[in-house]
Amino acid sequence: MTTTPVSPLAPKGGFPKLPVIDGLRFAAVEAGVKYKGRLDVMLAALDPDTVIAGTFTRSKTRAAPVLWCQENLANGLAGGGKAIIVNSGNANAFTGRNGQEGVERTAQGVADTLGIPVRNVFVASTGVIGEPLPTERITAKLGELGETLSPDNAEKAARAIMTTDTYPKGSAASVTLDGTPVKIAGFAKGSGMIAPDMATMLVFIFTDACITQPVLQQIVSANTESTFNSITVDSDTSTSDSLIVGATNRAAMPAITSMDDPRAAVFADALHGVMLDLAQQVVRDGEGASKFVAITVRGAENDRAAKTVGLAIANSPLVKTAFAGEDPNWGRIVAAIGKAGEQADRDRLSIRFGDILVAENGWVSPDYREEDGAAYMKAQDLSVTVDLGVDTGQATVWTCDLTHRYITINADYRS
Amino acid sequence: MTTTPVSPLAPKGGFPKLPVIDGLRFAAVEAGVKYKGRLDVMLAALDPDTVIAGTFTRSKTRAAPVLWCQENLANGLAGGGKAIIVNSGNANAFTGRNGQEGVERTAQGVADTLGIPVRNVFVASTGVIGEPLPTERITAKLGELGETLSPDNAEKAARAIMTTDTYPKGSAASVTLDGTPVKIAGFAKGSGMIAPDMATMLVFIFTDACITQPVLQQIVSANTESTFNSITVDSDTSTSDSLIVGATNRAAMPAITSMDDPRAAVFADALHGVMLDLAQQVVRDGEGASKFVAITVRGAENDRAAKTVGLAIANSPLVKTAFAGEDPNWGRIVAAIGKAGEQADRDRLSIRFGDILVAENGWVSPDYREEDGAAYMKAQDLSVTVDLGVDTGQATVWTCDLTHRYITINADYRS
Repeated sequence: MTTTPVSPLAPKGGFPKLPVIDGLRFAAVEAGVKYKGRLDVMLAALDPDTVIAGTFTRSKTRAAPVLWCQENLANGLAGGGKAIIVNSGNANAFTGRNGQEGVERTAQGVADTLGIPVRNVFVASTGVIGEPLPTERITAKLGELGETLSPDNAEKAARAIMTTDTYPKGSAASVTLDGTPVKIAGFAKGSGMIAPDMATMLVFIFTDACITQPVLQQIVSANTESTFNSITVDSDTSTSDSLIVGATNRAAMPAITSMDDPRAAVFADALHGVMLDLAQQVVRDGEGASKFVAITVRGAENDRAAKTVGLAIANSPLVKTAFAGEDPNWGRIVAAIGKAGEQADRDRLSIRFGDILVAENGWVSPDYREEDGAAYMKAQDLSVTVDLGVDTGQATVWTCDLTHRYITINADYRS
Repeated sequence: MTTTPVSPLAPKGGFPKLPVIDGLRFAAVEAGVKYKGRLDVMLAALDPDTVIAGTFTRSKTRAAPVLWCQENLANGLAGGGKAIIVNSGNANAFTGRNGQEGVERTAQGVADTLGIPVRNVFVASTGVIGEPLPTERITAKLGELGETLSPDNAEKAARAIMTTDTYPKGSAASVTLDGTPVKIAGFAKGSGMIAPDMATMLVFIFTDACITQPVLQQIVSANTESTFNSITVDSDTSTSDSLIVGATNRAAMPAITSMDDPRAAVFADALHGVMLDLAQQVVRDGEGASKFVAITVRGAENDRAAKTVGLAIANSPLVKTAFAGEDPNWGRIVAAIGKAGEQADRDRLSIRFGDILVAENGWVSPDYREEDGAAYMKAQDLSVTVDLGVDTGQATVWTCDLTHRYITINADYRS
C-alpha cells in the first residue's frame, strides 16, 4: 500500500476528543493481519446492560462477518456483556467456509477472553477480499486486547480500523434528556478503499443513554436513510458495510421504551447529528476527493423520487468530473436528472449553484453569467440545488468529485 | 475543442466502403454551427416508398429534436419523400421554446427544399447543451445540401455528425431474402462526448429491403435491447440519443408484411449484425478507452436479471479502473454483482477472465494463479464471464475501461 496524502478536505482540527462512555472500553493492537507496524485490530467491550442496533450492506454477496452480525441481531442477544471486534487488512469476503470458520473462531476467542456469550460478539472486517483470513493472527492477540481495555482508547480504536482512509473519523454529541446529560460518541472508516479492493464503510457509535433495543433499532434505521444511505463516492457498494450502535444504558435516567416518549425524538436528533457528521467525513475522505458537494433536490413527486434524482446527479461521472474541473456545467446536471427516470417538468426545472440561479423554466436563466458560475466552482465545499417543478418531495445527498487521483489510486496494479 | 488522438481501439481498416442504397442520397456541408472548417450538417433524402422506424433516449429531459421525431413516428408519416437532417456542434437541448422553433424551422426548410411534407422530416442535433441553436446557419445551407445530394456521400455524412468521436463509425451487411439481394448500411457517432457536454449517440441505418413500417419498427426495437441498450461507457444517458432506420423498399422483392414471414428473421439477423457492430464501435471510441470489454453473465434468474448484473459490473468505476490498470481484480466484480440487487448464489458463483477460471463455488479457484490473470489483462480486448449459479438467464454487455484520459477530457474547463 502506498502512502496517501491526507485529503485536502480533512477536518481542520484533527480527530475530536471523544467523551468517555460509561460501560464501554476499547483496546487496539498491532496484529499484522496484513499491514506491519500499525494498529489493525480493535476490541470494544460493552457492559451487560448494553443493547445493540445495526444496519448493514444490502449487497447480495455479503461477507461472512456481516452475515454473522445480522444473525446475532435477528436472534436477539443473550444477557451478559457484549463486544465488537474489528480487523483491518482483510475483509474476509468471498472466502467460503474458511471465512465463516474465521468469524466463529474469532467470536469464540473474544467470548472466552471476556467471559460473555459467543453470540453477543459482533465481528467486522475490512481490507483485501478473497484471501483467507489469518484468523490466528487475530486470536493470538485477544489476551493482550482483553488486558489493555480502557475507557480512553477510542482514538486508537478509530485508527485501527482504517484502511486507505487518510485520517481517522470521529464525532461526538451530548444531549440532555429530561435533565439527564447523555453522551454519544462514534467513529467510522471508509469509503477510502482498501488496496486493492473495495470501499467498505464501518461505523461504530456508542451512547450511555438508557433505551430499549427495539427503540434504538428504529431510530438507527430511520436515521440511516438520510445519513449513510445519502452519501456516495463512486456508486459502488461494499460487501461489508456495517453500522453498529451500542447503548450501555448507564445514564441516570429511566429507559426510553417507546418512540412516543418525547425524549426519543431528542435523542434521535442528537444521534442523527453524529451519524451525519461521520457520513460527511467519509465522503470528504472519498478517494481522490478535492471537492465536497451537497446536492439538494426539491419539487419532486415525493422524497424518494428526490433522493433518486439526487443520487443520479451525485453518481454521474460527467457531473463529478465537471466538479473536479471547476466547470459550472449545468448541462450535465440536466442530463443526470433526465436519466434518473423520475418525473421532472422540463419547462419548470431550475438549477442553482450556491445562491446563483443558473437555469429556470427549462432555459438558461437570463441573468446568469458563466463567469459567476465559474467563480463559484472554485470553492472546496459546493452546493447544487435542483427544483424539478413537479411537487414537494425533497432530499439532500452528499458526494465528492471524480479526479485523476481516483484513477491513480484504483487503476494501480496491486502489488 | 482540443484535438483528440484516434482511439487505440479504432478499427484497423478505417471507415468501411458502404454500399449504395437505391432510393437514398446524402449531402454534407460546412455550416459553422459551432466548429469551423469541418463538415457539421448532413442531409439524407429518402424516396417516397421509404418507411422509417426509430428508438430514442428514455431520458426525462429529452431534447427538442427527439420530441419532434417521436411525434412524427407516433402520428405516422404522410406519403411522399422522407428526410433526416442532422447537425453537430449544438444539441439543441434544454433550449426552451427557442429550441422547438429551431426544429420546426429546420424541418420546414428541408421540406421546402425537397418538396416533401414537413412531418416527414426527422431532425437530430448533437453538441453543446443550453445554447440557442443558430438555426439560420443550418437553413442557409439547405439549398447547397439539396443540390449536392448523391448516393455516394455516406462517409461524408458520417463525418458530419461526429463530435468528440476520434473516428467515423460505419457498418454494412448484405443478405439474400428468397433469392433477392438486400443491402444494409449505417453509421453512428458517440458516445464520445461533445466538449463540454454530453454523450450523445446518433445512429442512422438504411436498407433497400421491402418491408412495412410496423414490422421494421418491431425488428428495430427488438434488436436495440441486445445492441445499443447493452453498451455503456460511463452510465450517463444523453438527452438526445436517437436511432433511425429507413427502408427504401426498392429491392426487387415482395414486401415483408409480418414477423411470421420467414424472411423477417433473416433480415432482422442481418440488421442486428450492423447494429451490434456500430454499438461496439461506439464503445471502442468511448472517451479515454484503452480496453474493450465484453461481460457475459450466465446462470441468472432470467435474462433481464443477467443484464442488470452485467451493467452493474460494466458501470462500476472500481471495475473499470481495474481494467485500466490491467489488474485481474475479481474482488471488485464480486462487489459489483452484489450491488446489482439480483439473485446470486454466493456459494456457486464463478468468474472467468477469458478462459481462466478465477473463482468458483464462492471461493478463489484452487488452480488460479494471479500471474495468469495479470497476463490476460494485458490484452486490448477482454472478456469476463460470470455464472451466478441461480438459473439459466444470460446476457452480454460491452464497455470500456476508465482511464486518466477520461478525466482529462471531461474535467477540462470548457473554454
